[in-house]
Amino acid sequence: MTAITASISIALDGFAAGPNQSLEHPLGEGGMRLHQWVFPTRAFNEMHGREGGEDGPDSDVLARAAADVGAYVMGRKIFGGGSGPWDTSWIGWWGEEPPFHAPVFVLTHHEREPLQLAGGTTFTFVTAGLDAALEQAQAAAGGREVKIAGGASTIRQTLAAGRLDELQLHVVPVLLGAGERLLDGAGDPLLEPVEVVASPGVTHIRYRVGAAAG
Amino acid sequence: MTAITASISIALDGFAAGPNQSLEHPLGEGGMRLHQWVFPTRAFNEMHGREGGEDGPDSDVLARAAADVGAYVMGRKIFGGGSGPWDTSWIGWWGEEPPFHAPVFVLTHHEREPLQLAGGTTFTFVTAGLDAALEQAQAAAGGREVKIAGGASTIRQTLAAGRLDELQLHVVPVLLGAGERLLDGAGDPLLEPVEVVASPGVTHIRYRVGAAAG
Repeated sequence: MTAITASISIALDGFAAGPNQSLEHPLGEGGMRLHQWVFPTRAFNEMHGREGGEDGPDSDVLARAAADVGAYVMGRKIFGGGSGPWDTSWIGWWGEEPPFHAPVFVLTHHEREPLQLAGGTTFTFVTAGLDAALEQAQAAAGGREVKIAGGASTIRQTLAAGRLDELQLHVVPVLLGAGERLLDGAGDPLLEPVEVVASPGVTHIRYRVGAAAG
Repeated sequence: MTAITASISIALDGFAAGPNQSLEHPLGEGGMRLHQWVFPTRAFNEMHGREGGEDGPDSDVLARAAADVGAYVMGRKIFGGGSGPWDTSWIGWWGEEPPFHAPVFVLTHHEREPLQLAGGTTFTFVTAGLDAALEQAQAAAGGREVKIAGGASTIRQTLAAGRLDELQLHVVPVLLGAGERLLDGAGDPLLEPVEVVASPGVTHIRYRVGAAAG
């Protein structure tokens, strides 16, 4: 069975995005503070076709999180392009060669033809809901894992539906104080920490998700 | 300068106590799930004058959290005995020989004479507020650290006031879904993870607290 996984940065007070999210500021106010650990890493540079960057635990964690992914599922906000019918000139935030190098299934309420870009990334637009997207991604993943690429609500929905097998949290030592909480309304899943990696800027905890508790 | 520290168990969704806290159920519904990691440990048994228990990272973390404490500060709910004027027959939850073995300063709105118990624990009741309690505890600590023994609101208040030097979180992999959040309203302190200890049941993260961020 193809595992379904997710990796996401959260603030120590549980927020995965700051307040006042908008199409222009999809991470909300202060939300970018959750992702500062990513940008200096060698792994991030490599994913985007660049050289250089810092080696170390953060880079290793980032590289491993993408190492065995056969397909991605993401919410529309992560893909971008507004919330209404598609302007098909929008090809995502990542340009002509996105860093996924795999099939990506985008949850949307609006139909659109698949979009094939350079480097092995194909975006397929799924209007039939999360379950349908997970099934299509599992079929496309060739036995490798399916990664929920966000946003927080898509990860939460997958967890609450009992479909997530593994959740990796990058716990960032900031308090946002407001915004979108990752785990509110996610039910009461059985979570078991299976790997913890410490770095000076962030604590990476990987949880295996079991059957719902109690 | 005597360091002020705190150690507390929190759920992965940020709650330090469950919903519907009451005098009878000070941890709220489900709140006891946050503390299950403590009871099997050898360190917990030793603190309570018993032998046996499990060795391992959880026991080590618990033992070290209390190893260099010269004085404690706690909220009244942690000491117990209701919220009104004192019934002086109440000597705390811990019996005739409490596990603190040090001066303990209890925040309360109601005056009471100090209470000296066996094994070196003296409870002093402070009606002049948190700052006064911290000062008295620092003076009594003999150069060792002052530990905020809870509850969540006292720890949060100390953090928000910029008085906390170190915060150790025992991150328990459960979602309580409701209750009292430890870090809501704690401001935006500068937090730096300085030690992470993993165990199968809980992730212990020790943060150094710096000046308030930008």
